[in-house]
Amino acid sequence: MPVGIGDDAAVVEPERNSLEVVTVDALVDGVHFDRRFTPPEAIGHRALAVSLSDLAAMGAAPRFALLSCVLPPALPLPDFEAFVSGFTALAASCRLHLAGGNLTRSPGPMMVDVTVVGTVKRRRALTRGGARPGDEIFVTGVIGAAAAGLQMLQQNGTPPPAAHSCVTRYLFPVPRVRTGLLLGRNRAASACMDLSDGLADAVRQVAAASGVGAVIDADAIPIDEGARTWFTARGADPVIEAISGGDDYELLFTVGARRRGRLRAARNGGAVTLTRIGVCTGDARVVLRRRGAADEPLPPGFHHFR
Amino acid sequence: MPVGIGDDAAVVEPERNSLEVVTVDALVDGVHFDRRFTPPEAIGHRALAVSLSDLAAMGAAPRFALLSCVLPPALPLPDFEAFVSGFTALAASCRLHLAGGNLTRSPGPMMVDVTVVGTVKRRRALTRGGARPGDEIFVTGVIGAAAAGLQMLQQNGTPPPAAHSCVTRYLFPVPRVRTGLLLGRNRAASACMDLSDGLADAVRQVAAASGVGAVIDADAIPIDEGARTWFTARGADPVIEAISGGDDYELLFTVGARRRGRLRAARNGGAVTLTRIGVCTGDARVVLRRRGAADEPLPPGFHHFR
Repeated sequence: MPVGIGDDAAVVEPERNSLEVVTVDALVDGVHFDRRFTPPEAIGHRALAVSLSDLAAMGAAPRFALLSCVLPPALPLPDFEAFVSGFTALAASCRLHLAGGNLTRSPGPMMVDVTVVGTVKRRRALTRGGARPGDEIFVTGVIGAAAAGLQMLQQNGTPPPAAHSCVTRYLFPVPRVRTGLLLGRNRAASACMDLSDGLADAVRQVAAASGVGAVIDADAIPIDEGARTWFTARGADPVIEAISGGDDYELLFTVGARRRGRLRAARNGGAVTLTRIGVCTGDARVVLRRRGAADEPLPPGFHHFR
Repeated sequence: MPVGIGDDAAVVEPERNSLEVVTVDALVDGVHFDRRFTPPEAIGHRALAVSLSDLAAMGAAPRFALLSCVLPPALPLPDFEAFVSGFTALAASCRLHLAGGNLTRSPGPMMVDVTVVGTVKRRRALTRGGARPGDEIFVTGVIGAAAAGLQMLQQNGTPPPAAHSCVTRYLFPVPRVRTGLLLGRNRAASACMDLSDGLADAVRQVAAASGVGAVIDADAIPIDEGARTWFTARGADPVIEAISGGDDYELLFTVGARRRGRLRAARNGGAVTLTRIGVCTGDARVVLRRRGAADEPLPPGFHHFR
């Protein structure tokens, strides 16, 4: 990096023969997280994870980030240090460097704005608009854990002493950087999007951008076991809760029939499960299909607590 | 632009054989501007001008911007539209395109975060650290107008019906994009910084980064005539007010004796005045010199109203 933090701006070397992928996300206390039950490390981790997940959904490799923090006067210094440490730990794990930033005080709530710049090879960028009728719909990992974890935290007020795996999934989501990169590189996916606002929302968005419909098989959806137990114990429908809850940061993607063989490589040696949960159709309907029941419309997407 | 707003991230084509220059700045209502007397167009203009000025100070050409807005629920839609129009008008005048953004509600004050990415040719980036003893210190344009304009607005509460030129300078600062570019391209400047926090602050920062001292000639400082009249009428010292006030967004730069001839080209056909205001020295002192008086230390830099 020719010029670093401390000058008017940072100077970075662009990567050759690549396109750049840029994304910005703002997280506001009381809207996207709640400092009452989110430790500062988790805020720092999440602020970066959200943007990394956007890059993963484009099939891009992260290069550098800019961090802009708006801090309330009452934020203790150790909290700020823990916040930065949560951010930098995730950045280091992706070999992403912090190219610059901005720090300001505010009379309002804590606010974190993260810009991430990545690269993608030409014709390897994944978009939401490439799905065709007949393409199969896949999701990475398991879903619902973050939504259950958030409910646990909201109920308890503070993190439980022995944190439930769902709480960890909510507090420290792992963006699917490597999987997104592999899906783009080998051109396995025809469309891709991350699940920041829930699986139901992602299916709707990909279908709308691609001009297709979708049938989602309720029984095929990979729901986190801890989340299923939690939702069931509260008398809720685990499928509806899992697909309408946000914050999972898994990837939804579509694959044409002739490219299904390419998925093997994208599994990254089995480190990430890829589950077929439905198919794209030629009409405009986006529905959830359960064994022995009439098709139901997908529930609306998740909107952050406000 | 291969992929635009609406997907998970934006994809842009990098410029060949150039380095990238990136900067991010946050503006918070009540800290960096005050919605009570700053019209929404001016907030949009200023949010971008601040970052463009940082790029100018690096000698970089702006390429694209990302705009992240955190809006209070009470913000009327016409105000938001006027804000966006202020932003896009300045962007269009610099041929800068808006590559992406983020929009979120907040229980707190209005907050705008702008990331700008630009390019600079190798070995043409201007930094704060290149000044040497004997280099002459220059400033673009005239200073003090923005500080006077802010005082006028703070006093009146609302913009005066026939806006004073100082008020216009405060509300719609013009970043020195072209001058910065020319200073970098022809290697006229040894160091450069913008005046966002005032001339006194900029001199201190360049001196510290370069390991030099500085003597500023008080009588040479180009003070806006309207600002001088305003400060004098209030019994204040126009020099001290002008160099400690912020928001001018002019450039301070240093030039080695043998490169002074190159300044002619950087004047951009006389569109911008360049004034010699002092010289870098070999000791660590940073002082203001007035005719017939003992050297005095430069006043501290401007810190936004809080």
